[in-house]
Amino acid sequence: MEPQLHLFYALSFLAVILAFAFTVYLYLWVKRQKTQNARIMEVSELIRQGANAFLRKEYRILAIFAGVAAVVIFVLLPTPIWKGSIVNNIAIALAYIAGTVLSAIAGKIGILVATLANSRAAESAQKGIKPAFLVGFRGGAVMGLAVVGFSLLGVAVVLLIVGDATILLGFSFGASSLALFAKAGGGIFTKTADISADLTGKVELGIPEDDPRNPAVIADNVGDNVGDVAGMGADLFDSNVAAMVSALVIAQSLKGDWNNISMIFCYAALGLIASIIGIATARIGKHGSPTRALNSSTYVTTAVFIVLTAAANLIFEGFSWRIWGASVTGLLVGVIIGLTTDYFTDDSKPIVRRVAEASNSGAALTILSGISYGLISALPAMVGIAISAFASYFICAPMGPGYAIFGISMSAVGMLSIVGMIISNDAYGPIVDNARGLAEMGGLGEETIRIADELDSAGNTVKAVTKGFSIAAAGLTVISLLGAFMSESNVVLAEAGRELITGFDIMNPNVFFGILVGGAIPAVFSAMLILGVDKNAQRMVAEIRHQFNTIVGLREGKEGVKPDYDKCIDIATSGALKELIPAGLMTIIATLLVGFIGGPLSIGGFLLGNIVSGLLLALFMSNSGGLWDNAKKYIEAGNEGGKGSDAHKAAVVGDTVGDPFKDTAGPSINTQITVVSLVASLMSGLFVAFSLFG
Amino acid sequence: MEPQLHLFYALSFLAVILAFAFTVYLYLWVKRQKTQNARIMEVSELIRQGANAFLRKEYRILAIFAGVAAVVIFVLLPTPIWKGSIVNNIAIALAYIAGTVLSAIAGKIGILVATLANSRAAESAQKGIKPAFLVGFRGGAVMGLAVVGFSLLGVAVVLLIVGDATILLGFSFGASSLALFAKAGGGIFTKTADISADLTGKVELGIPEDDPRNPAVIADNVGDNVGDVAGMGADLFDSNVAAMVSALVIAQSLKGDWNNISMIFCYAALGLIASIIGIATARIGKHGSPTRALNSSTYVTTAVFIVLTAAANLIFEGFSWRIWGASVTGLLVGVIIGLTTDYFTDDSKPIVRRVAEASNSGAALTILSGISYGLISALPAMVGIAISAFASYFICAPMGPGYAIFGISMSAVGMLSIVGMIISNDAYGPIVDNARGLAEMGGLGEETIRIADELDSAGNTVKAVTKGFSIAAAGLTVISLLGAFMSESNVVLAEAGRELITGFDIMNPNVFFGILVGGAIPAVFSAMLILGVDKNAQRMVAEIRHQFNTIVGLREGKEGVKPDYDKCIDIATSGALKELIPAGLMTIIATLLVGFIGGPLSIGGFLLGNIVSGLLLALFMSNSGGLWDNAKKYIEAGNEGGKGSDAHKAAVVGDTVGDPFKDTAGPSINTQITVVSLVASLMSGLFVAFSLFG
Repeated sequence: MEPQLHLFYALSFLAVILAFAFTVYLYLWVKRQKTQNARIMEVSELIRQGANAFLRKEYRILAIFAGVAAVVIFVLLPTPIWKGSIVNNIAIALAYIAGTVLSAIAGKIGILVATLANSRAAESAQKGIKPAFLVGFRGGAVMGLAVVGFSLLGVAVVLLIVGDATILLGFSFGASSLALFAKAGGGIFTKTADISADLTGKVELGIPEDDPRNPAVIADNVGDNVGDVAGMGADLFDSNVAAMVSALVIAQSLKGDWNNISMIFCYAALGLIASIIGIATARIGKHGSPTRALNSSTYVTTAVFIVLTAAANLIFEGFSWRIWGASVTGLLVGVIIGLTTDYFTDDSKPIVRRVAEASNSGAALTILSGISYGLISALPAMVGIAISAFASYFICAPMGPGYAIFGISMSAVGMLSIVGMIISNDAYGPIVDNARGLAEMGGLGEETIRIADELDSAGNTVKAVTKGFSIAAAGLTVISLLGAFMSESNVVLAEAGRELITGFDIMNPNVFFGILVGGAIPAVFSAMLILGVDKNAQRMVAEIRHQFNTIVGLREGKEGVKPDYDKCIDIATSGALKELIPAGLMTIIATLLVGFIGGPLSIGGFLLGNIVSGLLLALFMSNSGGLWDNAKKYIEAGNEGGKGSDAHKAAVVGDTVGDPFKDTAGPSINTQITVVSLVASLMSGLFVAFSLFG
Repeated sequence: MEPQLHLFYALSFLAVILAFAFTVYLYLWVKRQKTQNARIMEVSELIRQGANAFLRKEYRILAIFAGVAAVVIFVLLPTPIWKGSIVNNIAIALAYIAGTVLSAIAGKIGILVATLANSRAAESAQKGIKPAFLVGFRGGAVMGLAVVGFSLLGVAVVLLIVGDATILLGFSFGASSLALFAKAGGGIFTKTADISADLTGKVELGIPEDDPRNPAVIADNVGDNVGDVAGMGADLFDSNVAAMVSALVIAQSLKGDWNNISMIFCYAALGLIASIIGIATARIGKHGSPTRALNSSTYVTTAVFIVLTAAANLIFEGFSWRIWGASVTGLLVGVIIGLTTDYFTDDSKPIVRRVAEASNSGAALTILSGISYGLISALPAMVGIAISAFASYFICAPMGPGYAIFGISMSAVGMLSIVGMIISNDAYGPIVDNARGLAEMGGLGEETIRIADELDSAGNTVKAVTKGFSIAAAGLTVISLLGAFMSESNVVLAEAGRELITGFDIMNPNVFFGILVGGAIPAVFSAMLILGVDKNAQRMVAEIRHQFNTIVGLREGKEGVKPDYDKCIDIATSGALKELIPAGLMTIIATLLVGFIGGPLSIGGFLLGNIVSGLLLALFMSNSGGLWDNAKKYIEAGNEGGKGSDAHKAAVVGDTVGDPFKDTAGPSINTQITVVSLVASLMSGLFVAFSLFG
């Protein structure tokens, strides 16, 4: 059968409709679960209000930012309005706005369901682990399906309307801008609250975690939602869109063969369907292990995707098996990277135990060993990404010029095909984490808390894996964005009648200049976020101390006396957004500076430098953070002297260092390198036209 | 006047003779200074014996390693012996051995004088800061001049004999192999001893630093010498040789113009003469600041070098002003990078104070803020290296094909022209650090200790600067080694009648594969060294506890009861060498794997990946370590609650984390990337001939 593009638009819309229908079903299912405990309902309401307050404020600032950016885009891109037709400029600006809006809606839906699911998961845990798991998982799945549905819908609709993949770069940039706010802003929020709550509550006052007297306790729970649900969702919305868009931009440059574009939509749609099947089959089996349930549904999704795409290739003659091979390679490498991440962060494996053991000799050795293993953990993932790019290049190169890079971009699309499942697993984490806190505050008894603990621990384990996966996916995506950047620059160069770029030669001084500067940017970006958490936490600690000193009866826990939770949420919110802006601006300004100094060749190098050091730092920070967290939990489970021992104190220092590593800086680097890549592609025309040494 | 090569050989030998004569004079001057205090003489003797014991053992292992390596080199390089003439193979193997031997001799001389100068500086401090400074500085200068003298001598003699710069790669590889042992091995030794002494002495037993009851105290002092004197000397011997050799290899490929080779020797010789002048003028001025004295003699050297080379260019018509410009650019950028490093690590500047302030809220914030500022500190240095490469490329590109890369290599030669001065400043540090300990153990009184402290503090400040400088120099050198690698590969490709390499295109999958794998290697290497320190420290801690438990009267400090210092030195020595070997092998094996899988293009990428992440990590680790060290000292000087406060405890954790960062892993990465680059250049023929996908 000869494939035709409109068929795959139809398939995409069908998949989106299925996904949305299933999303609605899951949402209503979660909502139907009972809540009775008054205390839980009250706290859960506070969390919901706090999360929404953050989103409102974040979206308000983002609306200003996006408005300004849309105007700049309209004036300058793809070509300055005084230089040609205005139609494309309008299209790209609108696409940009659409990207931000769809991502924001997906984030809002995620928060909506997560703040419903947390209390319901807590109460279901009274009936056993199976129903509680299902509530947590299905709550997460709402977010997963919404994100993937909206990203496929957005890409398909924009392309259908404008018929030019270049305009989609605007859509993708919209998604990235929002992701930068959501991920980095949410990351600063959540760790500000977490660290301040720990420093004042556990350390200074000696009250337990999740104690309602602590003014920061609600902010801490809100943080889980805005950081991990909304933030991670926006991050993967962004990666998913960027992977599809870069594949589409490259496919469009391979003129004349519509099969390529058909395949992109076909595979994306089948990935979404595979995720629906994977989610529908997720259940705790005989052994009752939630970790196993989460992993096995990922494997189901992977297998279904491979089978469905193979079937598509059998049905449609124009579909290339080579491209199928590239996609499957990407997917398998993604899964393998997830597993190696697990090796470094799972407390049943030797690394976490060694760090726990080292903690016996003091915090310095906790830090040193955690940093060392984190650095080592970057190797398998980077080699995996290298192999996946290398293999898909060689698989597709025989198809003709330009196909090799297309192969890499389809490898990224393949890796991200299971992203719906990945987000579901990821959003599951904060829901059950919240549920654990609620079970404690609601006094649901020891057995329920134990079950909630088990669910939470599975969330932590799986979170490390999904983080490894999403960093790898971002890496591969950014590589294909490098290809997209080259195509874009060449379009402009060809129009200007200038020599085309055939590659970015390391020995070229412009490229080399870009590489070295680009290599430093993710380091500075992540450092600025960590310092942001630092500063913001200091403000919140001051506020908490102030409340304990001024609110009569609070310290003693007098009946009816409540701290001012909102004040803390407010500090976390405005601080997070304030600290985030300089970091975001720094990366964009650095890109512009390098581009206007060294031209497109320097930008090619700059993107590469960002990829190398960005991947290294993201993997290092995420994995070190994950292993410190689990080393602490391993000690708290009674090993190496257990809670209160010297080893435990040292492990707490490790965990505190790891918090902003794994939840603020590490995963934000993904977004940062995507933003830089998209700014580069969008501005390619200007860099070609105006640069000092270009 | 028309320059002639033999003239510059003569100039080089003259400079070497001058340097050696001055070295002998300084050595005898140091030796003539009086020592009288029996206790100081005794301890100083123990340090000398320990350092020599380490060197003997290290050199014995190195002799085996070098023997094996020499045989492998003889059999395989530049072409396998079964494939052609054997003469070059003999030459390259002998050059390799010469490289190791000269570096070893320089290291030995450094240890010889440093272990003489420490006690003399301690006793001179009784007479005031000026004479004590002079002893410390002149002791360091012996090492500085010996290193530079031997490197220039070795390069000139080998080239004079064999007449082929390619053979010099063997010499340079010899220097690198030794540097890898000396720097990384010495680094593990010194931090093993330092951390163990602190953990058991200060923390567990509550006895002061440098207390003679602690069995690790002598090992700690020995460590300063083997790590900072011998290690740093070997490191800069290596960088200096590598810079000259890569310039010579590239100059040789620019056939027909002997002026280029003449300029390399001329500038190297003038750099050595400038260092002699700089060293001769070093004196504490009216303000009595040792830091200022050290810095001002660096500026004198810089100015003298610029003037002398300008004069040479005026005298010799064939000398290019463009190349002069490239050299001067490199030198100035090196000085500027040193100054920015100072900004991040000097306790009179805001960064160190902010980290000290953050320590009030616990160790986690000390670590987080130190890591953040360390990451940020990489930016100016990386931009500086990028600018220096970019500028020297453009300055020299108009001279013809190949000259642009030659410009970069001459920029590295320029930056390293003042290396004699840099090593002198660097070796000054451990001498006065030892002197401080000796002054305390010898009971020389408060005022003497205060003077020794001031000298020590200047050493620390200047050390951070010289580290920034040497990382930058290594970066620039490795970039020119990338050029040397390309020339070498092309020689082989041309012989085989295959297509030449014109560059390393990022979009080429082999290159890209190499880049990603290469980016992970310095991370893994540094992590292995840190874990090595960790493991080794655990062994030594066990030994110290054992001695305190079994030697009767040791804990109480009974007259005549002495710990077994040798045992600790022994553990540090064998542990250091044992932990170092896997890390060294890993980098070499990774290079071979990448080369035999992806061929020379992958190796080009691999080197680039090493440069980007190597520079980033080296700068980050050195500067974080330096700033933690100084933040601790700043608190100990009475700020933020002073000694014993919570801030101080947190700062001690930071300092302990920083120790292996700044003295083991950070500065070893230099050597690691140089070794990788040289292995690549040496093996280029084999990679061209045998590779799976090359």
